[in-house]
Amino acid sequence: MLLNARFPLRYIFKHIRADVVRVLLISSFFHLLKLGLGEYLPLIPLQLPTILGSSIALLLAFKTSQSYDRWWEARKIWGAIANDSRTLVLQIRTFVTNEGLRPAALDSPLRTTAYRQIAWCYCLGQTLRGLDPLAGLAAHLGEPDLAYLRPQANKPFALLALHSDQLQGLLQSQAINAYQQVQLDATLVRLCDAMGQAERIKTTVFPVSYRLLVYLFIYLFLMTLSLGLVKTIGLWEIPVLLTTASSFFLLERTARYLQDPFNNKPTDTPVTAIARTVEINLKQLLQEPEVPAPLAPEAFFLM
Amino acid sequence: MLLNARFPLRYIFKHIRADVVRVLLISSFFHLLKLGLGEYLPLIPLQLPTILGSSIALLLAFKTSQSYDRWWEARKIWGAIANDSRTLVLQIRTFVTNEGLRPAALDSPLRTTAYRQIAWCYCLGQTLRGLDPLAGLAAHLGEPDLAYLRPQANKPFALLALHSDQLQGLLQSQAINAYQQVQLDATLVRLCDAMGQAERIKTTVFPVSYRLLVYLFIYLFLMTLSLGLVKTIGLWEIPVLLTTASSFFLLERTARYLQDPFNNKPTDTPVTAIARTVEINLKQLLQEPEVPAPLAPEAFFLM
Amino acid sequence: MLLNARFPLRYIFKHIRADVVRVLLISSFFHLLKLGLGEYLPLIPLQLPTILGSSIALLLAFKTSQSYDRWWEARKIWGAIANDSRTLVLQIRTFVTNEGLRPAALDSPLRTTAYRQIAWCYCLGQTLRGLDPLAGLAAHLGEPDLAYLRPQANKPFALLALHSDQLQGLLQSQAINAYQQVQLDATLVRLCDAMGQAERIKTTVFPVSYRLLVYLFIYLFLMTLSLGLVKTIGLWEIPVLLTTASSFFLLERTARYLQDPFNNKPTDTPVTAIARTVEINLKQLLQEPEVPAPLAPEAFFLM
Amino acid sequence: MLLNARFPLRYIFKHIRADVVRVLLISSFFHLLKLGLGEYLPLIPLQLPTILGSSIALLLAFKTSQSYDRWWEARKIWGAIANDSRTLVLQIRTFVTNEGLRPAALDSPLRTTAYRQIAWCYCLGQTLRGLDPLAGLAAHLGEPDLAYLRPQANKPFALLALHSDQLQGLLQSQAINAYQQVQLDATLVRLCDAMGQAERIKTTVFPVSYRLLVYLFIYLFLMTLSLGLVKTIGLWEIPVLLTTASSFFLLERTARYLQDPFNNKPTDTPVTAIARTVEINLKQLLQEPEVPAPLAPEAFFLM
Amino acid sequence: MLLNARFPLRYIFKHIRADVVRVLLISSFFHLLKLGLGEYLPLIPLQLPTILGSSIALLLAFKTSQSYDRWWEARKIWGAIANDSRTLVLQIRTFVTNEGLRPAALDSPLRTTAYRQIAWCYCLGQTLRGLDPLAGLAAHLGEPDLAYLRPQANKPFALLALHSDQLQGLLQSQAINAYQQVQLDATLVRLCDAMGQAERIKTTVFPVSYRLLVYLFIYLFLMTLSLGLVKTIGLWEIPVLLTTASSFFLLERTARYLQDPFNNKPTDTPVTAIARTVEINLKQLLQEPEVPAPLAPEAFFLM
Repeated sequence: MLLNARFPLRYIFKHIRADVVRVLLISSFFHLLKLGLGEYLPLIPLQLPTILGSSIALLLAFKTSQSYDRWWEARKIWGAIANDSRTLVLQIRTFVTNEGLRPAALDSPLRTTAYRQIAWCYCLGQTLRGLDPLAGLAAHLGEPDLAYLRPQANKPFALLALHSDQLQGLLQSQAINAYQQVQLDATLVRLCDAMGQAERIKTTVFPVSYRLLVYLFIYLFLMTLSLGLVKTIGLWEIPVLLTTASSFFLLERTARYLQDPFNNKPTDTPVTAIARTVEINLKQLLQEPEVPAPLAPEAFFLM
Repeated sequence: MLLNARFPLRYIFKHIRADVVRVLLISSFFHLLKLGLGEYLPLIPLQLPTILGSSIALLLAFKTSQSYDRWWEARKIWGAIANDSRTLVLQIRTFVTNEGLRPAALDSPLRTTAYRQIAWCYCLGQTLRGLDPLAGLAAHLGEPDLAYLRPQANKPFALLALHSDQLQGLLQSQAINAYQQVQLDATLVRLCDAMGQAERIKTTVFPVSYRLLVYLFIYLFLMTLSLGLVKTIGLWEIPVLLTTASSFFLLERTARYLQDPFNNKPTDTPVTAIARTVEINLKQLLQEPEVPAPLAPEAFFLM
Repeated sequence: MLLNARFPLRYIFKHIRADVVRVLLISSFFHLLKLGLGEYLPLIPLQLPTILGSSIALLLAFKTSQSYDRWWEARKIWGAIANDSRTLVLQIRTFVTNEGLRPAALDSPLRTTAYRQIAWCYCLGQTLRGLDPLAGLAAHLGEPDLAYLRPQANKPFALLALHSDQLQGLLQSQAINAYQQVQLDATLVRLCDAMGQAERIKTTVFPVSYRLLVYLFIYLFLMTLSLGLVKTIGLWEIPVLLTTASSFFLLERTARYLQDPFNNKPTDTPVTAIARTVEINLKQLLQEPEVPAPLAPEAFFLM
Repeated sequence: MLLNARFPLRYIFKHIRADVVRVLLISSFFHLLKLGLGEYLPLIPLQLPTILGSSIALLLAFKTSQSYDRWWEARKIWGAIANDSRTLVLQIRTFVTNEGLRPAALDSPLRTTAYRQIAWCYCLGQTLRGLDPLAGLAAHLGEPDLAYLRPQANKPFALLALHSDQLQGLLQSQAINAYQQVQLDATLVRLCDAMGQAERIKTTVFPVSYRLLVYLFIYLFLMTLSLGLVKTIGLWEIPVLLTTASSFFLLERTARYLQDPFNNKPTDTPVTAIARTVEINLKQLLQEPEVPAPLAPEAFFLM
Repeated sequence: MLLNARFPLRYIFKHIRADVVRVLLISSFFHLLKLGLGEYLPLIPLQLPTILGSSIALLLAFKTSQSYDRWWEARKIWGAIANDSRTLVLQIRTFVTNEGLRPAALDSPLRTTAYRQIAWCYCLGQTLRGLDPLAGLAAHLGEPDLAYLRPQANKPFALLALHSDQLQGLLQSQAINAYQQVQLDATLVRLCDAMGQAERIKTTVFPVSYRLLVYLFIYLFLMTLSLGLVKTIGLWEIPVLLTTASSFFLLERTARYLQDPFNNKPTDTPVTAIARTVEINLKQLLQEPEVPAPLAPEAFFLM
């Protein structure tokens, strides 16, 4: 997530360098063409680039709005993950007799669930970003759990299966009653849903056709505008075309970054920071002596 | 689902060939008309095509946005199907005593449910695409189940009925308690909902009037623009009209493909790939020795 | 619901005949006015109709989008009705002992509920369309049920009350347990909700002010455009104004039809076809020997 | 709610009288200014009011769309109130033994709940509109209930507390079982939610800044347009400015009325009519001998 | 929340002072540049600022609409908090035997829960606004609860943990049955969700790139417009550019305030006023002798 202050313009501009160069070439080419063949070229009325310009604006408005929705949905999913992580542990505390009243023993269901849930948050974030899903999990999971995870393809799902085994054990040892088990299972269902929703955003490619269409419209716009400006503003044409087209490319690029929020980039949903918040909240609930600090932001973003 | 790279422009352009030819004919006709009858034709002020152009842009923005919503809703529905498929099997594992702890026997409720659920995902995808709903199901279902399915018109619904029979059996044999049965039934309700939602998108025709209106506006725009350009840009008029109108047609066509995501086309929701993911996740949960690989993408799309 | 193919343009155009005639009169009047009083009339700059044109476009975009939302919501409600109808019967099959295993007897709860639910779907559709709510219900309901329905004002609600009586009976005769009754009741709650949602769309008039404002803007646009064209394009003005204005009226009218989807018109939500699908699915679940065919479409629409 | 037919234009126009007069003064002032000081005034290019005009159009599109959403949300909330009122009574009928089968006795839980629920609907509607919340409730509530209500600040909430007391009594007298009580409580939760949602719309002021900005833009538009028209259309300027600006004011005002749907105005959500529908449905369910007629519409609206 | 009347324009204008000064400098600079170097400057056609102007309008429409959505979502979350606070206490009253019938004793579960819930509302509001989370809570909480809260980082979450302890105690002392506990827990889950949703809005920075892009477009627009006006309107250019650009900046700033509704500013969601409403409603339900008055608005806003 980009932070409010200290945002380097350079960061964005470097991503549209290729487009800027292409626009520069195109507008120079047209300029030379007009110098040589000006009399044979049509004088396109400026209404035509105006119409194309408003089509570009509407297409970009569409892309901007849909990519914002994806980005916000990703943030909502991770918000729900934080909420349900806290809910799950709070429910164990409510339901399992005496768990709420004494400091959590090392093997108590409250503590095991809380630590496994912390691990799940980190593991899901790393899986979505294509990083090593097990990195750092040894701090939160015992060796048997880690051994179960290693061969599994979908590691966050495997962690839910371990939660599910514990739910069965809790009912069999009568630590919870049958209604409580069903209520805890409902929380697992929501966690499984949130995981699947994040996977959906990760694996669904935003319709590529729209990017191609935006590019097509921008290039058409450049051409008609360039032809429409024949003989009016001379060499000034090049910076004018360059700045206008670059702004459109910049807008398109900004939208494109937002629409893929799990790409291990500064524009990502801050999944590590959220997992850390969950870790802090749950460890304080367990009244653990050591609680980590919130994740510190990088130069201008938070991961 | 179209993939990010390797996307052949040719693929889109071939779909608007008819429109391009029509536009070519129209603009040539107007050009000839103006050559012959130029003095009798009105000089339409260019504001008129501008107004029509912005109406087209708004109509296309509407179509683009609604068809994206349909496409994204279809993807969400299949995301929910993946989630609830995993949830269903996880719940059986949580609820049925000892299912979670031992490798699943061939006739265990866990294994039967998981395989039937895998079959349901493939079967629903094939039904929506108008393919043979039973193709390949023999790998996941026993003969009695297949025999029950054959005469049924709505095969995915019939598979849910088989799930429902199993829920009754599990309660009667006391493998689950009454609350667990209700909780499992709630998952079936969600699966039945998702199935119906996918059917709704499949069977509901997007209001055809809007396509006709877009076409009407584009042709009006072409005519007024052509008349507005009388005597200004000569033969250049034809490529100008052609490119502008084709971009609008291309946009309309792109939206139209998105809005029907179960048509067995490259722009489809990747239902087979999702069903395969479910198969992989569930078989790993069962600790099956053989787990298939994820569905490989075609040239530039994933089914 | 209008179907994809075979859509007669004549069908739409006949609905805007009155508007076309009015526009014809107005533009002729202005034309004559300008012939007689041209020198006293102001030469409105064409920017003014351009601004009005883009206001019209935005207002129509708003109307189009909101009426599409109403239409799509209506379709979603009926999709939910189809889903919950199937769910209700599937739940009875899951919960009531042995219902799932033997062919349904004439008076079994499974069969009675299924037939009453089929009747409810037809009855609700007919009520919403203002047709006889009881037409054809004798095929699905026994005489006692029909006798109970006749004096009731809200017949679909009365059918839900009969379902509710049956739920009480099932618990008292111990055919279902207390949790199952509550789960079945939850399905009734959703059906009651869907019924009320459809009633809401039926009885809520879309804010009329917007139609008036669209008309006001279109007429203002016509007047300023006509005055702006003084002396430029002569008699050609009339077809130009006529076509442009008619397209706007057509768009407004198309939106207006979509926004009232229970008016017994070709643009309606296909409630009869959906009820028929429910009938087919439920009868096949009961393994009835005779199952009707899906509802055949009319010339270019499906009811 | 405004009705489809018989809608007096006079009703809207009287609300923008003040704006019209102000525009008249402004445009006259500018006209006189230009007569006297024409040579010192700048000739604003008409592109500037065009840009401002499209900003106004977009701002008004935003306001129109958000106020429509508030209005539609208010209608949805009251739709949910109607649905849950019917659900509550249907559930009592399903759950309380024999309630469904005999005509409701005067003090039966079915009858008391139904009458209290009818009272709640009327009371909530009157509270939202700032009318006497207890007016007419004596027809539906006994004296003890009324006495409990009088000192309470939030009377609809107090009625829910009375429902809640009854739920406790029903469980204690074993008229319902524990699951049924929880299911009935879930319906109370939804009613309490709907009440709070309606209060939210009532008490949340739509961001006033946008109204000020719309006015600012309209006045800027007027000024630049007036200066842009220097010497072109003479005295005709005044009606032209007047009509264009008034249409914008009219649109803003229409949106503003929609956004506050509980103001005891003709554009209100028809809460009394909905409460009456609930009364009719519930009394017919109780098979009461006397059932009132639906609320008759006023001249051109329904309250 | 800004109130409808008495809104000082000065309040907004002071926030765009810096932008106004910057625009003044830019337009003066361009004016001087044109005085000195007019003949070397290009005459930008006014279509270019028109296209940029409509891009600005669309970007601002996007920002306005998304920030309104955030603001409205924040208000909905706090509406849900009010609803679930009342629901929680109503449920205790329904479920705990005799709680509903007698005046609440000092240590009754009804009274403790109600006071802790009031404290939670105030505490959450103060936490979100970055104020002292414990300020004023001594009026609602006993010393043991306060002592538990002090070391905790997330104080509202710690209050939910205290609620959760009470739920465990209520079941163990058989004051509620197992279903009632699960239903109360469901209300806690919703409160935990609402808390997390408010935190999400508080901690998620709206994509900063869009603000930069809006500024970039406005400055481009200023430059091209200024160059387009070369020699047409002389010194008038400066006020014209100033007013147009300031309106855009004003719109951007207004959106920016709405998008962060927990910043302890007049545009905040009125969390203190909502917490006070909850306090009033709950104390009246407890029939407390002293009930505070609703929070009085400040000069032109309500906190």
